Amino acid sequence: MLLMLYLIAITAEAMTGALSAGRRGMDWFGVVLIACVTALGGGSVRDVLIGHYPLTWVKHPEYLVLTSVAALVTIFIAPLMRHLRSLFLVLDALGLVAFTLIGCMTALEAGHGLLIASVCGVITGVFGGILRDIFCNDIPLIFRRELYASVSFLAAWCFLLCQYLQLPDEQAVLITLFGGLLLRLLAIRFRWEMPKFVYKDEP
Amino acid sequence: MLLMLYLIAITAEAMTGALSAGRRGMDWFGVVLIACVTALGGGSVRDVLIGHYPLTWVKHPEYLVLTSVAALVTIFIAPLMRHLRSLFLVLDALGLVAFTLIGCMTALEAGHGLLIASVCGVITGVFGGILRDIFCNDIPLIFRRELYASVSFLAAWCFLLCQYLQLPDEQAVLITLFGGLLLRLLAIRFRWEMPKFVYKDEP
Amino acid sequence: MLLMLYLIAITAEAMTGALSAGRRGMDWFGVVLIACVTALGGGSVRDVLIGHYPLTWVKHPEYLVLTSVAALVTIFIAPLMRHLRSLFLVLDALGLVAFTLIGCMTALEAGHGLLIASVCGVITGVFGGILRDIFCNDIPLIFRRELYASVSFLAAWCFLLCQYLQLPDEQAVLITLFGGLLLRLLAIRFRWEMPKFVYKDEP
Repeated sequence: MLLMLYLIAITAEAMTGALSAGRRGMDWFGVVLIACVTALGGGSVRDVLIGHYPLTWVKHPEYLVLTSVAALVTIFIAPLMRHLRSLFLVLDALGLVAFTLIGCMTALEAGHGLLIASVCGVITGVFGGILRDIFCNDIPLIFRRELYASVSFLAAWCFLLCQYLQLPDEQAVLITLFGGLLLRLLAIRFRWEMPKFVYKDEP
Repeated sequence: MLLMLYLIAITAEAMTGALSAGRRGMDWFGVVLIACVTALGGGSVRDVLIGHYPLTWVKHPEYLVLTSVAALVTIFIAPLMRHLRSLFLVLDALGLVAFTLIGCMTALEAGHGLLIASVCGVITGVFGGILRDIFCNDIPLIFRRELYASVSFLAAWCFLLCQYLQLPDEQAVLITLFGGLLLRLLAIRFRWEMPKFVYKDEP
Repeated sequence: MLLMLYLIAITAEAMTGALSAGRRGMDWFGVVLIACVTALGGGSVRDVLIGHYPLTWVKHPEYLVLTSVAALVTIFIAPLMRHLRSLFLVLDALGLVAFTLIGCMTALEAGHGLLIASVCGVITGVFGGILRDIFCNDIPLIFRRELYASVSFLAAWCFLLCQYLQLPDEQAVLITLFGGLLLRLLAIRFRWEMPKFVYKDEP
């Protein structure tokens, strides 16, 4: 089930990446590259930081093909995308929580403790979007949007708590997915935001 | 011969990197850093992603010295550089194809399949320039220029096809170099471009 | 003693990172992330480039907690920070030299030569700040400020020279710290700058 979710998640993230590239008027090659970076960048950063080789897409090059195809399809159905915004918000929320879960599991399997596992979860969840924004020369969006990274953080700890309470893996995954998705959608609906820190050098 | 090409390529790329830093008015240290990142960054990203240690410049620190010296020389001959634009376009095209070839070979030697080898070729070819633009806070140029990343992509597959057909290595290298260089120069001459994807949120 | 210095340095760097995030009006999560990247990013880039696993903060997750707490504290004492500028300039200078020393030592212990050790020293010293500026979408400051990267470079070679002369480690560290700190503070006081390279495409 997690694999299915992962495939849906990387497809959805690839399509949001492709739209970002389109907003900058990039050529098709750039669109494909930004899509792959958005979809697979978070997991790659995690794996490089904890030295977990080979990377997912090196082991499964078919994921690269999937994200590239998703990017090219996006180019052709772009006029439709405007009507699918709600669907993509849900898919994006699902992807965020699924990435976070997979990041936590990967770190735990590699023998890391809870703190590093939660950090790996958040990195997997949000770094794809951060890299997308750096490549497109934007200030990373995730620091300005409604609870996004925070959802990833809370989902990571929810999952780790379930593990700590020795719930079976499936229950832990389902509880985290449901809770994380709900929190994210409520945050979008009611525009919940983290407090912002605004600092000016001159008073 | 490929080593000779590699040395020419990193020198030329270091010099284009130094000019980019100069356009932003950086100090000499920034010029050297941007030059090294431009010349050696593509190979470094590739090696980190496939876990191929030690990195080229860690094993051969003399390449770092070469790119640093090239950067410093560029500062002094900058007024000349304007008259050498055509030469640098050719050297840059040569570097693009040579980097791509080396990236493919490195991946094949490390035991990766054709798809990952082609991706490694493209990463080696274009990521130096992408990193240069990120460090200089520009939108990566390669997504806006005439067939650039695409030349790298086609050169990679041309080389891999030659390998698949079991041509001797030298022939495969020569065919790819010649074909890639020709395609790039034709693309510059006739301003061939990839189609662009322009997306606006509001219709 | 070097550990004490390291802890002071990452705390000070985390706080300067948090202020940068505040200048961009990021939310609390972004502030913590930028603080961690600023404080621990230089060492992480070094370790990834030379394949030195596990990374410092993966082995000692308590450093992540320290930098996160420092970032959150910064949010609350921000109005005070304006009066502590001189203190932070000194702490930042201390951090720069301490990071450089630690980077050199790590590379030497991993068996690398003098040139790579000096490069690792500079990367550890300056890349945290470079990553901070890339995440905040600025042109990296270090290429525009008074001797900053150059201090790191000279400190690295000062330390390596002491090692070469077979001075005891403590003496080498003390000489480098004192010399580097002095040079940086003099550079700030008298606005010493590296010459800049300004290049325009049109004459």
